[in-house]
Amino acid sequence: VEGSAPPVRESVDFARIVAFTDGVFAIAITLLVLSLEVPPGLAGHALNNYLEDSWPQLFAYFLSFAVIGRFWITHHRAFGMLHDFDRRLLALNLLYLSLIVLIPFASELLGDYGDVTAAVVVYATVVGSAALLSSLMLRHTLGQGHVHADSRESAREISAGLLRAAIVFYVSIPIAFISPLAGQLTWLLLLADALPGWFRRARQTA
Amino acid sequence: VEGSAPPVRESVDFARIVAFTDGVFAIAITLLVLSLEVPPGLAGHALNNYLEDSWPQLFAYFLSFAVIGRFWITHHRAFGMLHDFDRRLLALNLLYLSLIVLIPFASELLGDYGDVTAAVVVYATVVGSAALLSSLMLRHTLGQGHVHADSRESAREISAGLLRAAIVFYVSIPIAFISPLAGQLTWLLLLADALPGWFRRARQTA
Amino acid sequence: VEGSAPPVRESVDFARIVAFTDGVFAIAITLLVLSLEVPPGLAGHALNNYLEDSWPQLFAYFLSFAVIGRFWITHHRAFGMLHDFDRRLLALNLLYLSLIVLIPFASELLGDYGDVTAAVVVYATVVGSAALLSSLMLRHTLGQGHVHADSRESAREISAGLLRAAIVFYVSIPIAFISPLAGQLTWLLLLADALPGWFRRARQTA
Amino acid sequence: VEGSAPPVRESVDFARIVAFTDGVFAIAITLLVLSLEVPPGLAGHALNNYLEDSWPQLFAYFLSFAVIGRFWITHHRAFGMLHDFDRRLLALNLLYLSLIVLIPFASELLGDYGDVTAAVVVYATVVGSAALLSSLMLRHTLGQGHVHADSRESAREISAGLLRAAIVFYVSIPIAFISPLAGQLTWLLLLADALPGWFRRARQTA
Repeated sequence: VEGSAPPVRESVDFARIVAFTDGVFAIAITLLVLSLEVPPGLAGHALNNYLEDSWPQLFAYFLSFAVIGRFWITHHRAFGMLHDFDRRLLALNLLYLSLIVLIPFASELLGDYGDVTAAVVVYATVVGSAALLSSLMLRHTLGQGHVHADSRESAREISAGLLRAAIVFYVSIPIAFISPLAGQLTWLLLLADALPGWFRRARQTA
Repeated sequence: VEGSAPPVRESVDFARIVAFTDGVFAIAITLLVLSLEVPPGLAGHALNNYLEDSWPQLFAYFLSFAVIGRFWITHHRAFGMLHDFDRRLLALNLLYLSLIVLIPFASELLGDYGDVTAAVVVYATVVGSAALLSSLMLRHTLGQGHVHADSRESAREISAGLLRAAIVFYVSIPIAFISPLAGQLTWLLLLADALPGWFRRARQTA
Repeated sequence: VEGSAPPVRESVDFARIVAFTDGVFAIAITLLVLSLEVPPGLAGHALNNYLEDSWPQLFAYFLSFAVIGRFWITHHRAFGMLHDFDRRLLALNLLYLSLIVLIPFASELLGDYGDVTAAVVVYATVVGSAALLSSLMLRHTLGQGHVHADSRESAREISAGLLRAAIVFYVSIPIAFISPLAGQLTWLLLLADALPGWFRRARQTA
Repeated sequence: VEGSAPPVRESVDFARIVAFTDGVFAIAITLLVLSLEVPPGLAGHALNNYLEDSWPQLFAYFLSFAVIGRFWITHHRAFGMLHDFDRRLLALNLLYLSLIVLIPFASELLGDYGDVTAAVVVYATVVGSAALLSSLMLRHTLGQGHVHADSRESAREISAGLLRAAIVFYVSIPIAFISPLAGQLTWLLLLADALPGWFRRARQTA
C-alpha cells in the first residue's frame, strides 16, 4: 500500500508542518486568556462582585487549556509515529487546525453562556469534530502504511481513544437540549477513559 | 546571472527567515478566530438567533483559513526550491507578509459586510496582491538563478498558478461593483484551477 | 530512583515540549501590549490627559514583562538541567503554562485597578502559584533523578529561589487586604533576593 | 577583555534566546493588524466612508510593519556576529523586546491620532528608545569582546546606524510639539540614511 498517495515530503518538509502545527497550538492555547476581560471603570466593590461571578469563565479557561493541551500531546504522539506524509494528510491537518483555532471562541461562549444549550452545543461540536478528525487522520495514515511498523498498535489505540472522545462530545449534544449542565457533566466520562491509564502508571511508579 | 545581487545569507540566515515567516503565518491564521465575537449579556433565545445569523462570519473564517493555509503551503514549496537568497527577496518577503497579516482584518470585514461592495473589494485586493507579490518573488528568484536547476519547471508552474489566482481576485473587483455576491462567486474559479490536479492525483491513488 | 516513572521521551520528544513552552511564553509576553488600549474619538487635550493617567497601566506592563521574562529564563535554566522527562512533569508543565498565560489578564487587572485589593490578590495568586508550581516541578524532577548529577546543586538553589518568590507573593495577599499599595510594595522584597547575585557579578566584572 | 562578564551560555542557550526573540518579533508584527478595526452595524454607504477615512490607520500599519521588520533584520545581523553572550545582554535584550512589543500600541495611537502631538511623541519615544537600546547592546558586546573579529567593523557600522535612527526619532519629538505632521516627516531622514546603500547595490546589480 505504501506510497499509493504521492508523498508530499519533497514539496513541504515534515519538520516545518509539525513546527507550524505547534505554533498554531501554542497561539490558540494562549489566546484563551483573551476570553477573560477586565471591565472598565468599576468601583472596588463592583470589581469584587465581577471577579466573584467569574468562576464560569475561569472554569471554561482551564477546561479549554486542558483540552487544547491534550490535543497537542496526542497530535505529537501520533505524528511521531509517521515515517511518511501525503497531501491528503496535509489538507486534513489544516482542516483539523481550523477546528482547534475555533476552541478559544467556543470556550469564551461556554464561559459566558454555560447555562444556554446553544453554547454547550457549539463547544461539543467543535471539540468533538476535532477529535473525530484527528482519529480519521490516524486511520488514513495507518491505511496508507505511513505509520512505523512497531507503532501501529499504539496508533490504533490512540485513534480509538480519540473516537471515544468524539462520541462522548457528540452524545452530550442531545443531552444539552434537555439540560445544558447535564451536557457538560457528560464530558466527565472522558476522565473514566483516562483513569485506567493513571492507575496503571501509579502502580508502576509505586 | 547568479550572485549578481549581493547574497544576504551571511547577514541573516535562511532558516531564520523561513522560521520567522512560518511564525507570522501561524499567528495570522490563528488570529482569524478573533473575528468571531461573543456578544455580552444576551438571553438564551437571543443567543440562538445571534449564532444562527453567524454563518457569514463562519464562512469567512473557513475561507480565510484555507486561503492563508494555501499561501503557506505554496510559500514553503517555493522557498524549498531556493539555494540562495538576496536582499531584494528579503524585502519582498516582508512586504508579502504585511499583506498576509492584513487577511484577518479583511476576513472580519467580509464576514460582517459580505453584501457590501467595499468589503469584497478590500478582501480581493489584499488576497490578490499577496498572490501577485508571491508570483513576482518567484520570478525574481528564477531571474537571479537562485532556484535549484531541477526545480525551475515547478517554480514556473507555481508562479503561473499564483498569477492566475491574482487575476481571478482582481477580476472579481469590478464584478463586485455590480454584485458583491457575484464577486465572491468569481473566486470559485480557483477551484477549477485546482480540480485537474485533484483528479490526476485521485486517478493515481485509485 | 531513575526511570521509576515511565519516561515520555518516546511519545513526545523533549525539544518539542521546550519549543511549545517557549512559544507560549513568547505569545503571553507579547499579549501584554493588549492591556494598553487606544481610546476612540478623543480630542487632543483629552488624549493628553488619558496618556498622562496611563502610568499605572505602563507600570503593570513593564512589571509583568519582567515577571514573564524572569519565569522564562528560570524555566530554561531548569529544563537545560534535565536529562529525562516523565508524564507527570509534562502535565505539571501544562498546568504551569496555564498560570503563565493568565498573567496578561492579571496584569491588565492590576494596571486598571491597582488601588483595589481584589486586583492585587489576583495578581499575587497567579504569579505566586506559578512560582510555587515551578518550584514543585524542579523538586519532582530532582526526586525522580532526572537532573544531571552536576546540576543538582543549582537545581536545588533555583527551586529554593522560586519557593521564596512564591512566599513573597502569598504573604502580600493578606497585606493587600490592609493596603493594596503595601501589598505591591511587598513584592520589592524579591529585589533583595536578586541583589546579592548582582553585587557578586558586579564584583566579578570589575 | 573576553569573558570578563560571566557567560550565560551554560544556563540559557543562545539558540533559544534567538528563537524566543524571533517569536516575540513575529507576534508583535502580526498584532499590528489588530489596530485595524471593523466597525459594527454600519450601512453600506457608511462603511465606504469609514474605509475611505482609514488611510491614516493603514499608513501607521505599513510604517510599523517596516519598522519592526527592519529591527528584526538588524537584530539578526547583529546576533549572527556574536560568539558569546552574557547576563547583561540577556537583560538588555528583554528590555529591548519590551519596547518592540509596545510598537503595536504606539502604532494604533499614531493611526488614530496622527494629528495630535502626544501620539507622535509616544511613537517617536518608543521607536527611538528601541533603536538606542539596540545600539547600546551592540556596543556592550563589542566592549566585552563577544563579537567575531571579522565582524567588528560591520557591528560598529550597524551600531552607528541605529544611533542615527535614535537621534532622528528623538529630534522629531520637539518638532512634533510645533507640528505633529512635521514631526512625522522628520522620520523620512532615515530614508536618506538608507539611500546610499540602495544606490550602491543598484549599481552593483546593473
